[in-house]
Amino acid sequence: MLGVNKYLDIVNNELKKLFSEREEESEDVHRDYYKKLEEFVMRGGKRLRPIGLIMAYIGVGGLNVEDIAGACAAIELLHNSSLIQDDVMDRDELRRGKPTFHVIYREWFKRNFGSESAERFGDSMGILGGDSLLEMGVKSLLKVKAPLEKIVKIVDIYLDSYRGIIEGQLLDLLFERKIDITEEDYLKMIDLKTGALFKGALLIGGVLGGGDEEQLKALGEYAVLMARAFQIQDDILGTFGKEEETGKPTDSDIKQGKKTLLVIKSLERDSPEQRKTLLSILGREDAKPEEVEAVRRIFVSTGALDYAKARAREFAEKAKNTVHAKARLKREAANFFISLADFVINRKY
Amino acid sequence: MLGVNKYLDIVNNELKKLFSEREEESEDVHRDYYKKLEEFVMRGGKRLRPIGLIMAYIGVGGLNVEDIAGACAAIELLHNSSLIQDDVMDRDELRRGKPTFHVIYREWFKRNFGSESAERFGDSMGILGGDSLLEMGVKSLLKVKAPLEKIVKIVDIYLDSYRGIIEGQLLDLLFERKIDITEEDYLKMIDLKTGALFKGALLIGGVLGGGDEEQLKALGEYAVLMARAFQIQDDILGTFGKEEETGKPTDSDIKQGKKTLLVIKSLERDSPEQRKTLLSILGREDAKPEEVEAVRRIFVSTGALDYAKARAREFAEKAKNTVHAKARLKREAANFFISLADFVINRKY
Repeated sequence: MLGVNKYLDIVNNELKKLFSEREEESEDVHRDYYKKLEEFVMRGGKRLRPIGLIMAYIGVGGLNVEDIAGACAAIELLHNSSLIQDDVMDRDELRRGKPTFHVIYREWFKRNFGSESAERFGDSMGILGGDSLLEMGVKSLLKVKAPLEKIVKIVDIYLDSYRGIIEGQLLDLLFERKIDITEEDYLKMIDLKTGALFKGALLIGGVLGGGDEEQLKALGEYAVLMARAFQIQDDILGTFGKEEETGKPTDSDIKQGKKTLLVIKSLERDSPEQRKTLLSILGREDAKPEEVEAVRRIFVSTGALDYAKARAREFAEKAKNTVHAKARLKREAANFFISLADFVINRKY
Repeated sequence: MLGVNKYLDIVNNELKKLFSEREEESEDVHRDYYKKLEEFVMRGGKRLRPIGLIMAYIGVGGLNVEDIAGACAAIELLHNSSLIQDDVMDRDELRRGKPTFHVIYREWFKRNFGSESAERFGDSMGILGGDSLLEMGVKSLLKVKAPLEKIVKIVDIYLDSYRGIIEGQLLDLLFERKIDITEEDYLKMIDLKTGALFKGALLIGGVLGGGDEEQLKALGEYAVLMARAFQIQDDILGTFGKEEETGKPTDSDIKQGKKTLLVIKSLERDSPEQRKTLLSILGREDAKPEEVEAVRRIFVSTGALDYAKARAREFAEKAKNTVHAKARLKREAANFFISLADFVINRKY
């Protein structure tokens, strides 16, 4: 994607190196544990956050990408840490087409000790696994080749991202149960849960590359706007995408009753009858295909779909303007961030 | 205890300050969340780790305890982080005589949204709560008044402790299911789960106070030996203590089938008949008082109790010798660490 494959290798090699070190230092169960974590992290994923970090670094004038590989790995580890623990909290069984981390250990336990307390064991390993990746992430930051002031600064930024992810997940858990979520609530949740990490990635890249205050501010704003555009597009694809393109069922958001912008806007604009239909179907795992389709029609007829599309476009445009007007990035990086904004709202997957 | 009350206030005030800052920065649900975390952390506990940190600092020549209050708070936050997540994993309902953190949120959820998925919500909040305390802990280290080299060094040590706690908890989870645990396995688990944090506390104090390599090494050794003595004494009190002194039931280790040194040694030395009795009672929540008593008698007649007492004493003596011979600490600190070793093996609670 977007001509960044040369950087992907740097990120992936660094991740592999960190896990190899752990595995060599450990024996028996711990070695096996770090191998399972490695398998999870190396399954793939677009590495968008570490690539963004590298582009921010290059954009403000950073010259040696190899020097900051440890920071790239750290950001990806934090992302994976939150995925593993979110999967425990959401009881998800699959991640990137394979069993989630806690499910891997649940099944391992069943094979070795039987079913009793296998679920509790799996969940426990998910908690520990997430903790370990965070621990490895901060460790990796400490070893980045940079002056000590910068090391302390990037650890500080990293923790701000961690805090955002935690606080965002807390809101997400609460919103599952609340009906009257406003768009403002929704954006606050996105800014924390998705925005904080992307912002942290770009700020860390910006700091390591020697960006000035104005550049860092612009990178941070870009990241938050992009996370919003990304998440709204995700909401749209989750219901109106094509399953063969997104790789995800297009009825699960509706069946899970996810508080997407489509739902929030529809509930602001619906007729009493539409509201009755919405509330009777959203969140019902056994909703029939024609019921799911009825919800889709309400998203269209209330104008919620058009509104969401317009909002995603608006945030992506603002993001691009921020890069153009304030970030003063080198051409390769500026082009990347502009293309990324276009990609995010035009993507079908 | 041991004349350290003057330092307790420094630790507790710093903790309160950190939580107040969070609460002021946050609104609504997040403020409430940090208040609940504060209530949990401020419930009490002996603050043995931060007090140890201060004593190590003073012992190697550190002069201004106020400067390192942030490091003391960080160590206590890490300890509490692990308690909250352990309680989720172990399904414990009570901690320091009050509901565990995940139980507080489980009950809160029930009152607001009903029983369905209340347990899942409580567990999720326990995961997040543990994560937040760790995040606050590292943040607090970054603000300690010390040169940047020392800041980076103490974050590094802190992460080693975190790693130890995680890896130790992993062993603990596995040992629940295994019968053939050796004393060596047991000590490895203690060294990680209990030793790593106490060691981290003393090393951080030693580094901040300007201790030399030999002093740091001695402090680290002392911490690991003390954690062993402490844990073995804990095992003894858990079965042979007086409930009115320990505040804990004296049959729960047996009923939970905990792999204490008493169990490990008995299984090495028992007759076929004793083994049959042990294996039929250990781990049975419905064991009758006379069955629990039968297990106690086996612990005595196999010599496991005497062995455990001797081992605890041996580790405490070695710990004292390490302080005497190698640590070269100022008198106040040396006296503290010596008395602590005596206290640990003579305590009845």
